[in-house]
Amino acid sequence: MSEPLRTVNVGLIGLGTVGGGVARLIKSHHDEYLAAYGIDLKLTRACALAWEQAEAAGIEREAFTSDWHDVVTDPAVDIVVELIGGEHPATEIFTTAFENGKHVVSANKALLGRHVETLAEKARACGVQIKCEASCGGGIPIVSTLEHDLVGNKILTIAGILNGTTNYILSRMDAEGADYADVLADAQAKGYAEADPSADVDGFDAASKTAILASIGFGTRVTTDDVYQQGIRTIGAEDIAQARELGYTIKLLGIARNTDAGVDVRVHPTLIPADHMLAKVNGAMNAVYVVGDAVGETMFYGAGAGSFPTASAVVGDILSLSEQISRGVVPLPEIEPYGHNLAFKPMDELQTKYYVRLKVADRVGALSETVDIFAKHNISISLINQVEDGKSGVSDACSVIFLTHRALEKDVQAAAAELASVDCVAEVANVLRIEDVEAWTEGVMAN
Amino acid sequence: MSEPLRTVNVGLIGLGTVGGGVARLIKSHHDEYLAAYGIDLKLTRACALAWEQAEAAGIEREAFTSDWHDVVTDPAVDIVVELIGGEHPATEIFTTAFENGKHVVSANKALLGRHVETLAEKARACGVQIKCEASCGGGIPIVSTLEHDLVGNKILTIAGILNGTTNYILSRMDAEGADYADVLADAQAKGYAEADPSADVDGFDAASKTAILASIGFGTRVTTDDVYQQGIRTIGAEDIAQARELGYTIKLLGIARNTDAGVDVRVHPTLIPADHMLAKVNGAMNAVYVVGDAVGETMFYGAGAGSFPTASAVVGDILSLSEQISRGVVPLPEIEPYGHNLAFKPMDELQTKYYVRLKVADRVGALSETVDIFAKHNISISLINQVEDGKSGVSDACSVIFLTHRALEKDVQAAAAELASVDCVAEVANVLRIEDVEAWTEGVMAN
Repeated sequence: MSEPLRTVNVGLIGLGTVGGGVARLIKSHHDEYLAAYGIDLKLTRACALAWEQAEAAGIEREAFTSDWHDVVTDPAVDIVVELIGGEHPATEIFTTAFENGKHVVSANKALLGRHVETLAEKARACGVQIKCEASCGGGIPIVSTLEHDLVGNKILTIAGILNGTTNYILSRMDAEGADYADVLADAQAKGYAEADPSADVDGFDAASKTAILASIGFGTRVTTDDVYQQGIRTIGAEDIAQARELGYTIKLLGIARNTDAGVDVRVHPTLIPADHMLAKVNGAMNAVYVVGDAVGETMFYGAGAGSFPTASAVVGDILSLSEQISRGVVPLPEIEPYGHNLAFKPMDELQTKYYVRLKVADRVGALSETVDIFAKHNISISLINQVEDGKSGVSDACSVIFLTHRALEKDVQAAAAELASVDCVAEVANVLRIEDVEAWTEGVMAN
Repeated sequence: MSEPLRTVNVGLIGLGTVGGGVARLIKSHHDEYLAAYGIDLKLTRACALAWEQAEAAGIEREAFTSDWHDVVTDPAVDIVVELIGGEHPATEIFTTAFENGKHVVSANKALLGRHVETLAEKARACGVQIKCEASCGGGIPIVSTLEHDLVGNKILTIAGILNGTTNYILSRMDAEGADYADVLADAQAKGYAEADPSADVDGFDAASKTAILASIGFGTRVTTDDVYQQGIRTIGAEDIAQARELGYTIKLLGIARNTDAGVDVRVHPTLIPADHMLAKVNGAMNAVYVVGDAVGETMFYGAGAGSFPTASAVVGDILSLSEQISRGVVPLPEIEPYGHNLAFKPMDELQTKYYVRLKVADRVGALSETVDIFAKHNISISLINQVEDGKSGVSDACSVIFLTHRALEKDVQAAAAELASVDCVAEVANVLRIEDVEAWTEGVMAN
């Protein structure tokens, strides 16, 4: 080893699932990092609420503190790793660390989804970096891919299975013909889903990640609030079965498109062709499909959560910073990364095909009334299919699936509202989008 | 834009499919790179055998030369891009460029597959870098992923569909039930396969890429010569059909495993479970499946060839070097990257299940004789299936498929040799490995 070795001091805040994994990974791989990269990585400070947590993660007694200020102000610390999540005190940890000249590695999608731009500006002003590979897609190196590897491209589309819990639920519903509530209950019993599952099943988690990936991929300002959001609670076994019969798979996708009509960002259950690569991603695994104008279609697949997969991303960021620090080179702040200020395409203006499931009154003329309402809103129907479900919950109504031709979101929502208000419709059970995956590759350069 | 802008001068050698794509990508995206990264990327010199080639790629007259020495010795050039392929004069281009203080970006898998270590040493001695993202997997950012993003892991397994031509042929054989020769002829007619297809169908191309990825992923010396190599010429429609019936898909895989028994590197047609992510990669697309001990299973999917996909990788490398050059920071040479000097596991010692197709004489006792030969070589058979193919080419013989239990490569090859020599066997049509994909994730850290 001819390079000078240097100790890089890490200050770790948060010793939960991910933080504990990071501590254990750094400890078990210390000698390998030293041999391979010349980096003597030390967990110099570690902060958790209780010593027991730190002890379980193998932290030395003298490194432990329960006050995060001790970590971010410690002159020895080169890199602060924030793994507590949430907005506060994470924001204060970031800014105090920056002011003390420390780089920050974080997996905090909630914070970065809302404030990546202002935090990046602050880091830039202080001459330090934020690295957030672990905030999206767990162990999948997707942030780095967008930030570095695909920079020769204009990124046209990002479409991701970004939440393992919902993909696990939808995959099991598909494999077993099971109902949402039953699979969710089982997933909760097994620890795959939280007691309060809303961050996952209502799409918040995926929306934060979609915002971060769109910001980085498109080089523009996208926050979680810009992302249209619809969850999977209304998806039933009959929807999955119907979709499959029509050649589709239902996935909760975070979709970001960089179109001439503006940036289109949304999270919702989506019908995609069953032979699309994203449709083949099952269980709790994540995948991010990216289209660049030069590279064309790509997909990046891996574990989106879990202690060691996420720790892999965190430690990758730490080592990336360390390789520069260890040679005395100050890591370069990125050039103003969100400079494009692209306009958004309003959700109302989305045009695609739709899958609508209604509970229609079981009487003559009811179906014809519903079709009239679609027509009144400029929506033309390509298929109507009455579903035998035997458990519609409304004894004098039956489930009917409508597939539309290409229609305008605004019109479909207006039609859905009117359908919900008329006597012949007992329930508008689902309004789902059938994604035009062909459009995802529009703008790819012809070879 | 508050950062100082700087012109980065690129010298491009080779203006074929990839070189032409690089020239056109740099030209069409010049303003975008300037706006987004502050880099004024200039194609200062470009070398091709004929001016017409350069003109077609949009090269300025004054930048053109037909002598590569003009490019590597031009004091203005910061980065040399070598896209001519082959060993000579590519080797001289690399070394002269290094001696002139220039970084080299290359897609030259043949050269790097044999000499990546010595070239990297030379670059290191000259204080410059080699970037070779485009040498493996075309547009898929797999080199960077192994070099940077997954550095927190011990890489356990790399298994890739690294050759688009063979995946296209195998996918079409699978979809259409077609024979190898027919699909190859059609692929040649359409320009998907070369007139002399041996580099693709015999596995040379995949072997070079496997060597490069294993070198980088495991941090050890692996050259193309270390990679066991078997192509797809012997695969027939009946093999594909039989495999499918047994729940497998046949893919030409480049497999590299970092095991306690040594590094195991090989390219061969492989039976993998039909529900494995690699089995779902169809057509000319490539994918690299990587297992790290922390991150677990990952897969990276995209176009493995083509003008703009490969140019995406080349320009990604150019911009990565440029971001450092443009701020006056000399890109850091990597720490001795192939320092592990791991031992190889001899191919003879491979242990897995096998798929063997024999043409067995159509007479009483013939089958029993073959089974005896397997038994004599310590190979136990799990399934025997006589195939009705109607076109075996040997009128008094029939195709019989044997699946083995776990056996030793050495024993299987010895049995195959003996089977080939006995009267009751007309032909040993195929000896294929059924990959133990469960073993690929052995050593992953438990969450």
